[in-house]
Amino acid sequence: MAASAQNFMAALFISFTFVSTSFSQSILGISPQLLDLFAINRVFGHRKILKDNAFYCESWRFTVETNDAGFWNLTPKRCTSFVKDYMTGHHYSSDSAAVADQSLAFASTVKVSKDRMDAWIFDVDETLLSNLPYYVTHGFGSETFDEIAFDKWVIEADAPAIPASLKLYKELQQRGFKIFLLTGRSEYQRNDTEKNLVHAGYSNWERLILRGPTDNGKPATQYKSEKRKELEDEGYRIRGSSGDQWSDLMGFAVAQRSFKLPNPMYYVA
Amino acid sequence: MAASAQNFMAALFISFTFVSTSFSQSILGISPQLLDLFAINRVFGHRKILKDNAFYCESWRFTVETNDAGFWNLTPKRCTSFVKDYMTGHHYSSDSAAVADQSLAFASTVKVSKDRMDAWIFDVDETLLSNLPYYVTHGFGSETFDEIAFDKWVIEADAPAIPASLKLYKELQQRGFKIFLLTGRSEYQRNDTEKNLVHAGYSNWERLILRGPTDNGKPATQYKSEKRKELEDEGYRIRGSSGDQWSDLMGFAVAQRSFKLPNPMYYVA
Repeated sequence: MAASAQNFMAALFISFTFVSTSFSQSILGISPQLLDLFAINRVFGHRKILKDNAFYCESWRFTVETNDAGFWNLTPKRCTSFVKDYMTGHHYSSDSAAVADQSLAFASTVKVSKDRMDAWIFDVDETLLSNLPYYVTHGFGSETFDEIAFDKWVIEADAPAIPASLKLYKELQQRGFKIFLLTGRSEYQRNDTEKNLVHAGYSNWERLILRGPTDNGKPATQYKSEKRKELEDEGYRIRGSSGDQWSDLMGFAVAQRSFKLPNPMYYVA
Repeated sequence: MAASAQNFMAALFISFTFVSTSFSQSILGISPQLLDLFAINRVFGHRKILKDNAFYCESWRFTVETNDAGFWNLTPKRCTSFVKDYMTGHHYSSDSAAVADQSLAFASTVKVSKDRMDAWIFDVDETLLSNLPYYVTHGFGSETFDEIAFDKWVIEADAPAIPASLKLYKELQQRGFKIFLLTGRSEYQRNDTEKNLVHAGYSNWERLILRGPTDNGKPATQYKSEKRKELEDEGYRIRGSSGDQWSDLMGFAVAQRSFKLPNPMYYVA
């Protein structure tokens, strides 16, 4: 079986390799059991993958979305058009919809109590609202964050809803969840944020929580964990939490289930 | 600016929509400010995405790798060939390599102490060893798990190394990390597992931890957390942890940084 297993590897990983004809003949016909094809892949395949932007950027996105990458500052320059295509084509929309579907599948298993203490937390930016129109003119995350320009964009209050999130939001409300919005935006942006949310179709949230004076400078994970803890202390059962950043979902007082939305444009620590 | 923002959306999301010619003319020319293109996408784009296996399966994989899906049993039937292509083409290899690169980037920032108490934990299956030759003949995760057949495969001790993991393993050793292997396999599989690891190129781990009699029936997250806690109690600083399952990485006594390897073939609770 050792030989047959290596035959499998030969069949499977032949595509990984840059091999000469005589070499591939030796793989296919003569002595497959002598070949360590993973080793060949290590040498040749890895080089091919590194050269290929599509693979490099797809795999970069994997490490970003799983949080393997940890802190990152800007999208890699070589991935700007990849991120643009992902965000403006079907992929982003499809991934957002799949996350909403999984969220609703879980919500359907929750026996929502009549005491109205079952809560669902949503982040705002890239979770309920899409800032894509802003990032279209700011390099899709490849340019240093321009706080002044972004603040102007927030004041315009014109960010559209992410369609799948709006649908999920409404269905959760219908099922009796109380909706809390927990955002890294600051108190001075409350009016513009409310205006934008309403304009985009959101309504009847229980509370919109923004960074107050004592929250400034706190890492997002700490700030959001503290606010979740306050909700727990009020007696709420935090069933679900939706956010595009891992800092929306980690820390303490975490929800029963957390849902990571896609965002390959920026990272919030 | 409201109108110009909607122009952006028109330019961006036109590809989402199945629109009649007259309708797309109205988007492109006449009154873009009246159109809620996200709403159009919601109705038409979502339907297209659901019909399209490639998008469906890519987005299913997103929810699996981010743990948005939570528990899942089998890969969706419609995604069998998608998972096959992912696993046997460049994608899996590329994603594994990217995770290893991120792991090493973090490891490079750790000041490894001379006390030899800096630890790195690896899971075994689909982390150090690849069971792909087994899954090739078992539907790539689309068939019910066959414990007897898989146990036979384990006895053969013929699973190859994942190349990027082997490279990472060796580099971590060179940097002075103590390596712990923490697997859901059971004590009775110790000899076969050691034999397979050595055959695949791994050596000089500090300890191989398998499920003992008191661990049977425990969820993986609990079992692995308890074992990590024991290492902490011995004084080890768990710097990194690598695993293909979220149950390898979550719970308590978690590592300073955790690294999720790809695995769209099965889920371990």
